[in-house]
Amino acid sequence: MSKKTLRVSKIKDGTVIDHITRGHALNVIRMLGINGRGGGVITIAMNVPSQKLGVKDIVKIEGRELKPEEVDKIALIAPHATINIIRNYKVIEKQRVKLPQIIHGILKCINPACISNSESEPVKSIFYVESEEPLRLRCHYCGTIMEKEDVLKQF
Amino acid sequence: MSKKTLRVSKIKDGTVIDHITRGHALNVIRMLGINGRGGGVITIAMNVPSQKLGVKDIVKIEGRELKPEEVDKIALIAPHATINIIRNYKVIEKQRVKLPQIIHGILKCINPACISNSESEPVKSIFYVESEEPLRLRCHYCGTIMEKEDVLKQF
Repeated sequence: MSKKTLRVSKIKDGTVIDHITRGHALNVIRMLGINGRGGGVITIAMNVPSQKLGVKDIVKIEGRELKPEEVDKIALIAPHATINIIRNYKVIEKQRVKLPQIIHGILKCINPACISNSESEPVKSIFYVESEEPLRLRCHYCGTIMEKEDVLKQF
Repeated sequence: MSKKTLRVSKIKDGTVIDHITRGHALNVIRMLGINGRGGGVITIAMNVPSQKLGVKDIVKIEGRELKPEEVDKIALIAPHATINIIRNYKVIEKQRVKLPQIIHGILKCINPACISNSESEPVKSIFYVESEEPLRLRCHYCGTIMEKEDVLKQF
């Protein structure tokens, strides 16, 4: 067992998502459309001891810098996550994910009768974030409340 | 970005599954019933350059030694995988996965009319491995052929 294959070294270029809520690393990569069948090296560590969170998950994506709207999506399921953008081994940007107060168009309302689900009406979904943790979103149109589990099912 | 949080070091005790066919690390952990919501540290690396396979995936499971029947399951989707059992940082056992010629009871036949799917008959499924790569399994009872995609849907 060589050290070389077993260690995952610092990445040269890409994104490190740290402080992901335990158990959500796989949801984060699913949200980002990563299935491992293409692209650069992806490293995932789950159940890692953390001073801040007790236990946390980490995801490293080589060769890809997350866009702001992708960072917003992550905030839905991992509100404590920090995003580090890496270029040439250096952190050039470090930010915490931040859930906007109003979420436009990313999610679908779980109420099938909601006007935002009507095929004849071109209405974009709008949700108000009533609580970040536990996650609680209220539909602008029909008032339906969605929780984390409802959000996870959509990705 | 400290080295400490970014490097995944050698594991003390557990299992390293190496040389997983690219794109199948997530299927391997699903097959093993791992969702990251409990247990020890799990590390996954996808799309890692490999001399043997070009590109490969690796999974490290701390604090758990895979059983032979679990190793057999992995062979269904990652026929080149190698399994290293680690104790106190040393590889105490190294083996290649090996698909048995006949698979008993792990899989369900995709033919709903197959007698092995009958609720009234207590018949265990039996499949003959006609080809390992690409995977091709033949049901003992009804002759239905199953391929890798059919197997993946069952885990």
